[in-house]
Amino acid sequence: MLESTVAAIRPLDEAAMAAARELQGRLTKPAGSLGALEPLSVRLAGLAGACPPPLPDQAAVAIFAGDHGVHAQGVTPWPQEVTAQMIGNFLAGGAVVNAFARQAGASVTVVDVGVATPLSVTPPDPAVRAADPADPAGPSALTVDVVATPADPDGPRLVAANVRAGTRDMTVTAALTRDEARAAVETGIRVADELVDGGAGILLTGDMGIGNTTPAAALVAVFAGVDAAAATGRGTGVDDETYARKVAVVRAALARHTPDPADPLGVLAAVGGLEHAALAGLILGAAARRVPVLLDGVIAVSAALAAAAFAPDAVGAMVAGHRSAEPGATAALRHLGLDPLIDLGLRLGEGTGALLALPVVTGAVRVLHEVATFDAAGVAEK
Amino acid sequence: MLESTVAAIRPLDEAAMAAARELQGRLTKPAGSLGALEPLSVRLAGLAGACPPPLPDQAAVAIFAGDHGVHAQGVTPWPQEVTAQMIGNFLAGGAVVNAFARQAGASVTVVDVGVATPLSVTPPDPAVRAADPADPAGPSALTVDVVATPADPDGPRLVAANVRAGTRDMTVTAALTRDEARAAVETGIRVADELVDGGAGILLTGDMGIGNTTPAAALVAVFAGVDAAAATGRGTGVDDETYARKVAVVRAALARHTPDPADPLGVLAAVGGLEHAALAGLILGAAARRVPVLLDGVIAVSAALAAAAFAPDAVGAMVAGHRSAEPGATAALRHLGLDPLIDLGLRLGEGTGALLALPVVTGAVRVLHEVATFDAAGVAEK
Repeated sequence: MLESTVAAIRPLDEAAMAAARELQGRLTKPAGSLGALEPLSVRLAGLAGACPPPLPDQAAVAIFAGDHGVHAQGVTPWPQEVTAQMIGNFLAGGAVVNAFARQAGASVTVVDVGVATPLSVTPPDPAVRAADPADPAGPSALTVDVVATPADPDGPRLVAANVRAGTRDMTVTAALTRDEARAAVETGIRVADELVDGGAGILLTGDMGIGNTTPAAALVAVFAGVDAAAATGRGTGVDDETYARKVAVVRAALARHTPDPADPLGVLAAVGGLEHAALAGLILGAAARRVPVLLDGVIAVSAALAAAAFAPDAVGAMVAGHRSAEPGATAALRHLGLDPLIDLGLRLGEGTGALLALPVVTGAVRVLHEVATFDAAGVAEK
Repeated sequence: MLESTVAAIRPLDEAAMAAARELQGRLTKPAGSLGALEPLSVRLAGLAGACPPPLPDQAAVAIFAGDHGVHAQGVTPWPQEVTAQMIGNFLAGGAVVNAFARQAGASVTVVDVGVATPLSVTPPDPAVRAADPADPAGPSALTVDVVATPADPDGPRLVAANVRAGTRDMTVTAALTRDEARAAVETGIRVADELVDGGAGILLTGDMGIGNTTPAAALVAVFAGVDAAAATGRGTGVDDETYARKVAVVRAALARHTPDPADPLGVLAAVGGLEHAALAGLILGAAARRVPVLLDGVIAVSAALAAAAFAPDAVGAMVAGHRSAEPGATAALRHLGLDPLIDLGLRLGEGTGALLALPVVTGAVRVLHEVATFDAAGVAEK
């Protein structure tokens, strides 16, 4: 599935982009006066292969959750159980991502791709089984099974796709086997397919995983070719001592595995996380379906680097939602050649930065649908 | 009315701000992880005098339109008639501001405060009369009369409040008399009152006026104390020759009038525009009603400087929507001590930049309303 998805990813459609550029020049506004929204609308036309591209008014946030063996190295003051507790908060609608998703009219799908703590969630129907990534021909290979649906059918849902109960400690051994990394990537691809099949016109990346900025820093260091210190940030707000330890942990993991950026599955297995791998899959799945994927913060952009390593044309489907306060995010965005839409010092994750940027993306496309031309409106030009 | 409005503007409520800071610390997210949204939510609590402050889910854009005698100096390649033509486009729903307002669920009110070209709009009811700013005790003194309402009751509406058919050429004489400037400011105050009385929880500034970045540059130069060249930009995109002429025009007007920044009405009269004066009034009106006002681009922030000169505490009600590509906007924001929420190189005006920023403001407040605390959600802290 990974190989066929990568093979399906193609460059942007030049004719649709030319049509969008030409249309932008005829709309009742000075040429270029919408700044970054104009090239964004052109790129989305190229992705859709149509001008105007579809209005992305059905948005879906996918929050991939996982835990991290490197937590044992003291890279964060937060207990590992918080990953599972926050999933409960997401499903109850009490997190910031829920508030922003309600405001934006976006659906929320939480995917347990590697949480270590057993989730205290009762499946509503015992017959529903979890997706089995090890059995690609099985009945769940092309479907994402939902194990918990709250009373509100439009409310957040939980998808059980746990590949393993957290990664191994990357300072001791590889975080994942190649098969585990592939299973996580393919989970992300499946989630993208399900959401697009369900009508989503844009996917938003979300993440939850105590300790997950540490593997994100390692991924950025490998793929963007920057030093461990330049790729590592303070995450949820660690003190100087923890920050120094975090940089040393990233450096030690890179020295142990010397990952090869030309082998993205190998990199994800050596120093990645299950949610990072699944997000790379979500991005590849969106690109293969030619649906835009709005990236959140440093976890998302570290995964985007992996996706671009699998398929360079996948960058055409990526929209950088915001500039996270994490330095690794800026290094990754520079490597991908993406300018973020919002820059407000957010460092929460969950998909919150992507959700804040969603109206900018929708607005950029809406202009091509709804704004009158000079001719039609009877407005003189300069 | 101007004096009583200024007198009603008070500092932010410290107790409500303290309550908002305390609440932010208990919500299920790392402290500070929402970046600029956290202090914004605190400030809006201080403005409302309540924690949480009301969710600003009913938003109203007020587009003030005017023309400019300085157009005769060749400061823009666009014909003056475009101001009136664009009002037709706003009322037909075909402009970018309409597309963004529909997306944000905001109402659009167009106020003719000084358009030179007769508007080709038929009043639906001949008995409806235009507001008469010269007759403050008259029946229209506290009401804004709508002269055109489209078939859609939620569609854009036009308010007739024309003070004069464009300003005079400020390089030759004062753009306005003090009475005209006052009439325009009080029109803005009345519009703010009407919109807040109608239920608006946040006001957004909009503007339309061919040539209006030239008086905006003059206002920024006076109030922010910067040189004409530093305050003047390329507006809708003028060439080098026109830009040089524009700077010279601003410099000549400032030299002729030497406006005193301590006398904001005098500054607006000497080198302002009718829409700039009305926007200053809208901002003062919002501040007096303790409703936030989301500023658009350089026209709005030049008017905000005038509002702050009338009443320094009015800054507490201002939220900078975006950083316009115009250099004068950045100089004005620095003087006001405001950081913009969006920075995407927009230079369209109309209220478009404010509308793009609206979901960020709403999101910042929504967090205080909807996000669970660590205690309530059963999530452990670090």
